[in-house]
This record gives sequence, structure tokens and C-alpha cells, in this order.
Amino acid sequence: MDRKRRYEELLNNMNQYNSGSKGITRVAFTNEEQACSHAFMRLCKNEGLEIRMDYAGNIIAKREGKHKNLPPVVIGSHLDTVYQGGKYDGVVGVTAGLEVIKRLNEQKIETDHPIEIISFACEESSRFGVSTVGSKAMAGTLHKEKYQQLKDKDGITFEKALSLCALRFDQLDLASRSQERFKAFFELHNEQGPILINNNKKIGIVTGIAAPVRLIIEVKGAASHSGTTPMNMRKDALLGASEIALALEAAAKEEQHHGTVATIGVLSIPMGAMNVVPGIVEMKVDIRSTSIVSRNKVLDALSKKLEDVKERRGLEIISQEISKEDPVHLSEELSLQVEKICQDKSLPYQWMQSGAGHDAMNMTSLGPVGLIFIPSLNGISHHPDEHTDLDDILTGIDVLEAAVLQQAVDLSS
Amino acid sequence: MDRKRRYEELLNNMNQYNSGSKGITRVAFTNEEQACSHAFMRLCKNEGLEIRMDYAGNIIAKREGKHKNLPPVVIGSHLDTVYQGGKYDGVVGVTAGLEVIKRLNEQKIETDHPIEIISFACEESSRFGVSTVGSKAMAGTLHKEKYQQLKDKDGITFEKALSLCALRFDQLDLASRSQERFKAFFELHNEQGPILINNNKKIGIVTGIAAPVRLIIEVKGAASHSGTTPMNMRKDALLGASEIALALEAAAKEEQHHGTVATIGVLSIPMGAMNVVPGIVEMKVDIRSTSIVSRNKVLDALSKKLEDVKERRGLEIISQEISKEDPVHLSEELSLQVEKICQDKSLPYQWMQSGAGHDAMNMTSLGPVGLIFIPSLNGISHHPDEHTDLDDILTGIDVLEAAVLQQAVDLSS
Repeated sequence: MDRKRRYEELLNNMNQYNSGSKGITRVAFTNEEQACSHAFMRLCKNEGLEIRMDYAGNIIAKREGKHKNLPPVVIGSHLDTVYQGGKYDGVVGVTAGLEVIKRLNEQKIETDHPIEIISFACEESSRFGVSTVGSKAMAGTLHKEKYQQLKDKDGITFEKALSLCALRFDQLDLASRSQERFKAFFELHNEQGPILINNNKKIGIVTGIAAPVRLIIEVKGAASHSGTTPMNMRKDALLGASEIALALEAAAKEEQHHGTVATIGVLSIPMGAMNVVPGIVEMKVDIRSTSIVSRNKVLDALSKKLEDVKERRGLEIISQEISKEDPVHLSEELSLQVEKICQDKSLPYQWMQSGAGHDAMNMTSLGPVGLIFIPSLNGISHHPDEHTDLDDILTGIDVLEAAVLQQAVDLSS
Repeated sequence: MDRKRRYEELLNNMNQYNSGSKGITRVAFTNEEQACSHAFMRLCKNEGLEIRMDYAGNIIAKREGKHKNLPPVVIGSHLDTVYQGGKYDGVVGVTAGLEVIKRLNEQKIETDHPIEIISFACEESSRFGVSTVGSKAMAGTLHKEKYQQLKDKDGITFEKALSLCALRFDQLDLASRSQERFKAFFELHNEQGPILINNNKKIGIVTGIAAPVRLIIEVKGAASHSGTTPMNMRKDALLGASEIALALEAAAKEEQHHGTVATIGVLSIPMGAMNVVPGIVEMKVDIRSTSIVSRNKVLDALSKKLEDVKERRGLEIISQEISKEDPVHLSEELSLQVEKICQDKSLPYQWMQSGAGHDAMNMTSLGPVGLIFIPSLNGISHHPDEHTDLDDILTGIDVLEAAVLQQAVDLSS
């Protein structure tokens, strides 16, 4: 069986674990996700790997190297999905790891460093509103007290969900590997955006991962009768919000060359009615950049606009920052190595940033991290229509294999 | 007992009929509204009026004139309220009618023309989504087939609600008085807007009632990941909607001198999430003017903006007109008469339009109509905080009394 067919079968095998009828629903700490994880462990065992599930539910499958004490080269991503997600997000990175191992095994290649595949638990925030939980736990940066009482849409707590997987909330900290160093960590992931497809590139070399600043902005005016309130006597909260939305877009466009983006994804008018001038508007704002300076320029422009709208329209505006994480910069050494591989293979590639978070960002505290993107058709992700051509995945695996092998074999030895 | 105290007692008496704890809830065809209506009928009977409830639930209380066959001078408004409404909207106009009768009785004034007080049924659209039902039935312009299956929030049909008041849906047409002519119809109502208060006027003489054009606009872009979609590759439906909202405001402000207003009271992003670029936005638009030309200018400007946004942002826009009524012009003769009364009484008054609909507009097919506004504190209406000073109501009743008397007494006799 050729590698392409073999890999396709592996990917399809994993995507059998699905509770939904539309797209793939394999949500963290559910029966489907656990069955998938255990199936993956068996497949790893078949390839001679030493397998374990850690205290956070992360799966670690290890191929021993010649030198037991050398730090491992790690390939990691996740098997969980959003509700009604696609067939590629996460699972491609995990199965790519296993395909790399299969290639090494069939060629009987021994490496100096051990190689690990990690399938991180609970990468997606869909179930509990928190993301990359397993990789945070492994990095030793999980503030678990925030998690205990989180509930999913059915009222099941995070703690209860863990216990249904025979995991214990009070043992989560034991998943930490913060005292270890990895030789290198690689994640192969679909881009989840339209840049590679639009630019006709096969590989994206990610230099940094943007972290969002998130705000809730409440605009308060005065609800009044839409028929009896003259235009010049209104305090229309929606018109203030509209100005803010357009100003935010303009500010982000000014910073486009930094890959900075800004979005108002949620806007609502509580108690809105066709014959009432909107008195209150609530908005949720998400601003991302790998450049703190660029991100702050957008935040500054937003603040100025809020002041302007407040005074000019006589509105009250309450802006609350609900999260502000710092962008993560990935290993220049590993990125240059990936670039060299692309050049050697004559693959069209480009440098880029990731606007979405990934487990890779948490691994930067354990060693150098490389993140490799492959194209997403139409940029669609977190949706049943998510698609990446099989050939493009195989190309990604070729690059991953080369990078892992170069890192796992000591040139000095 | 002085007139002010007497009137206050009457108004408070009517506002006892209330099913809510916040503001006044006396919704059409409910027990509270029926109890209020029957109490009002008893009070009218005490003043010697001939009373009846017609086939639509309108209460008609008649004070006979010297000449039985002369057309009546009518004072009308409504006793029903919105959910959690105020103490003034509607009930002031009905009770003012009774106070005028009390004054005529205590002065033993006989008029040539009969005088009627009408309390119209179901003026507010809160319960069934349809307004001024009783006055439409009386005018003979009710298309009752549209009403039969309308349901309130508890699933009770319009037909069932009528039957609980011992009214029959199939007899609604019998309420029509379209073969009669009124000598004059007057409605005294609180402004429900801020114009009189802001301009320090006591009386508003209404020249016309605006009718709304209502549209539903759906803006369709493409939902995509807020982190991974560059600013120049987005089709953000909310930004398109924001441009439309601001352009609509600008167009209405251009037409402000005509009293034209335009409002987007409802805007929603179905499935909106903080990390998703909005793919769909739904808006409900309400445009009102007493000038069809001015209203059409705003509609034209809106259409142009929709085209512009569609092309420039690559969005799909579906605009659907859900209602388009024509504005109503009131009697110049009656308005000039009211002006003269204000001048004689040295009352600060102004000419104005009504942006809200009233039973008065349906009465224009039965005879000349005059609509008199009194101030609303802060322009608030349809809200527990609705307020009009008692002195201002009394001033309104003085003007109403004078106008009714002048119409009801034939100068030639």
C-alpha cells in the first residue's frame, strides 16, 4: 500500500469517532474523543511505541532513540474537535506524527534522540470555553482553580468530565513536564485561513502566534419611540456602535502589514424592537497581532474613537478588557530549517503568522517550537466544509519528516 | 371638590385596573382592560350618558344634543396599554372626554350636536402585533381576515380573546360607522416624544400623522475565523450593516426639517461568536414621515447605500418591504380653531407632526379630525416612567373643552 493510501486510511479511521451527523463532533473528554484517543494509542503500540496517557489526558507515544537520556524531538497536535467541525483541524497533526514514525520504521532508521508523538487533551474551547488545556498542563502553566466549576452546555462540570475519563482534577498538575527540555517541538496544522490558498503556496512557516486582546464594550444611550423622537434628540446606541465597528476596521487595516486583525463578532441590542431607538448595545471585540506594538496601535485608535463617540453622541461607553495574552514567537532556528527543506524540495512556501492559538504556543516554554501550516480550501475551518487536499497533507508530512529527522539525528555523532 | 382633584381621582381610578407590578399593564381584551372599560361605562352612565359597547369592543358614550339628527362631536382615545406601560398613554384622552362632559353638566350647558366619548378597543399592538383595531373597525377599514389566527404570547388567538369578552369575530364588521359623518373628532394624547418639553410648549397642534415604511434587511457575507482571516480577505456582514445604519441616519437628518425619522431598532448576528467574523446580519428598519416625498428621499438614499455596500464589500443584501402605509393629514379647520383657543388662553403651543400612530388617523374617513398633544416628561412613553404633569393635562382638557363646545354649538342657531 502506498503512503498516500495508508495515510488516508489512518485519517479516515480517526474520523470514524464522531457523534454528529454534520461534520465531525469529537469534543474533548467525551466518549467519542476517548474512543478515538484509545484507538490511536493502539495504533501507536502496533508501531512499537511506548504509550501512556498523562494526568491531563494527553497521549504520549514514544519511539526510543539510541541515547535514552537525550531530550526528545516531539510532534504534537490534538484529536478533539469543535461541535460540527471538520476532518482536518488537529487530527492531521497527530496522524502525521504516526505516519512519520511508520516511515522511520519501514526504513529501519534509528535516531539519536527519542521521538514523541503527543495528542494534547482539550485543545478546543468549544466545550468548556477554555482552550489548549492539555498543553498548558504539560507546560506547567495551567491555573486549574479557574477550571473546576466550568460547565458545558449540558451542565456537566470540567471536573466531572475529567472523572468520566478516569482522570482526577486534583492530579492535573502532575501532567507538568516543566522540568524537562525538548530538543524540538513541531506541529503540523491546517492554516484555517485563506492566505496559502490565495497565494498558491503549499507550506506556511509560522513565525509567531497572535494572542487575542478581548474586550466587552457596552454602549448606553436612551431607548425612545422611533416615531416620536426627532433625529437630533436621539441617543441611539446602535449608531455609536456602528461608528466604533467601522473605526476598528479602519485601524486594523492600517496595521494590515503586521497581520493584525480586529473583529466585532458579537453585537446585540437587548430588548430591541422595530419601533424603539436602541438604548443599549453590547459588543464583543477580538484584536490579534503577533506584534504588541501594532496591536496597541489598534487599541489606541479604538480608545480614541470611544471617547469621540461618547462626547459627540452623548452616549455612555463602558469598555472592559476580559483577556490580554501576549503573542508567542517561535524558534527562528527551526523555521530556517523548515525553509531550507522547502527550498530543497522546491516547494512554494511563505513566512506567515498564526492568528489562531495552537498547542505549539504552550510548548515554547519547554524548548524550540516550529509550526508548519498547510492550505485550507477557501480558508474554511471549524465547519463541516473544512478541507485540505490529501496531496497537500502528504507534502506537509514530507516536510515534517525531514525536519524531525534532522533534529533527531545528532550530526556530531 | 375642585376640577383638578376630581380629574386626578378619575385618572387614578382607571389606573387601578392593572395586572402588572411595574407600570401599568392593561392589555387589550384582558380581564383588567374589560373591568376598566366597564367601570368607565358606569361612570359615564352616572353622568347621564347613553352607553353601549359596539361589536368591536369600542365603548361609545353619548350625551344627546338639542337636535337628535345632527352629527356628533366625538372625543376619543383608548384605555388599553402596552405591557408595563405608563399611566397616561390613551387613558388621558378617554378620561378627558368624561371631564369635559362633567363640566358641561355642572354648567347645565346644552349643545346643538350630540357629544360622544369613544374608548377604542385594542389600540396598542403589544398583544397581537396589530394596532388601532377598534378604530379601524369603526371606520370600516379593518381587513379582519388577517386577524383571526393572530396569537398572543400565550398562544391565545385574536378570535378567542374576543370571545372571552363576549364579542364575536364574525360580527366585527358590524362595528362599522362608515355610513355616518362626525361633525368633528378630537383626540387629546400625550406626545410620547420630547419636542414639547424641550421647546417649553404646553400644547402641540398636530397637522399630520406619519405612517411607517418598514423593511427587513439581511446582509450576507462569509463567516470566517477572526484570527486567521486577514482584513482584506473578509466579507464582514456587520461592517456592511454598520455603514447602512450610519447612512440611514445621515439621510434622515437631511430630511429633519420635514420631521422625518429613520431607525434600525433590531440588529442581530445569528450564531455570532467572539472568534467568528459575522457572516449574516439581520436588521429591522422603520422610516416615518408625514411627507411621502421626504420619506421616499430617505428610501432612495438607503437603496443607493445598499448597492454601494454590496459592490464595495462583496456582500449579498436582501431588502424586503414589510409594510408601507401612507401618512394622514388632519383637519386644517380644526387645527386653526385649536390654535385660536391657545392664543386666546395665552398658552405656549406649537404646530407639529405625530410620529406615532393614533386612533385619530382612522377617524379621518368619518369627518374632520383634530389631534392635540400635551407634554411627555423626557419624551418617555410605553414605559413605567411615562409622566405628564397633572396641570398640563388640565390645560389640555381646557383646550379640548373649548374646541368641543365650539363645534357642538351651532353658531347659526
